[in-house]
Amino acid sequence: MEKLAWMNLLYDFYGQLLTQRQQKFVELYYAHDFSLGEIAEQFGVSRQAVHDVLKRAEHILTRYEEKLGLVAKFMDQRRQVGEALALLDNSNNSLDEKTLMRVREILRSIMG
Amino acid sequence: MEKLAWMNLLYDFYGQLLTQRQQKFVELYYAHDFSLGEIAEQFGVSRQAVHDVLKRAEHILTRYEEKLGLVAKFMDQRRQVGEALALLDNSNNSLDEKTLMRVREILRSIMG
Repeated sequence: MEKLAWMNLLYDFYGQLLTQRQQKFVELYYAHDFSLGEIAEQFGVSRQAVHDVLKRAEHILTRYEEKLGLVAKFMDQRRQVGEALALLDNSNNSLDEKTLMRVREILRSIMG
Repeated sequence: MEKLAWMNLLYDFYGQLLTQRQQKFVELYYAHDFSLGEIAEQFGVSRQAVHDVLKRAEHILTRYEEKLGLVAKFMDQRRQVGEALALLDNSNNSLDEKTLMRVREILRSIMG
């Protein structure tokens, strides 16, 4: 996954653990595509200060995922649901028994 | 959900954010059903000390869930997968088109 999408995903999961300022900068930079310079201007700080806040926020978000792995867990579950859905979508109205069994297996493994 | 199951779930998600001692006590008390007295004896501390560590750990885990809501998010997804699975299980080999559509709908909503 490219960094932008990954940071947005990490922020979606752990963003509430950042300070308000970190949250604001991450949102503007990663979700709204502001440049460092634009954020700096809007907040009356230096470009370097924005850069530092973003680096710090990225580090914090990355550390939480290293510790908890909840984004990975979620992505894995999503991948499995996607697989089940693809099997159902591809079989249209002629769902054979084998496919049905496979779909059930996948869903059951998600239920743990 | 009763407290024991809920604490185990919170611990499963956020336990890595606790100190080693907090982790150990929570595991013994909630997952392995040790009493406060048994933990106290094993670690050579007072029953009150064990109680305090557990209360503190519960507070931390609860606060993370209040902030992030990831257990709730996960449980909701699980509930949806369970619903899809029940529809497939109940229809055996005679899966009608309407049920199939509903299952797809559920899975698609999980994919977001």
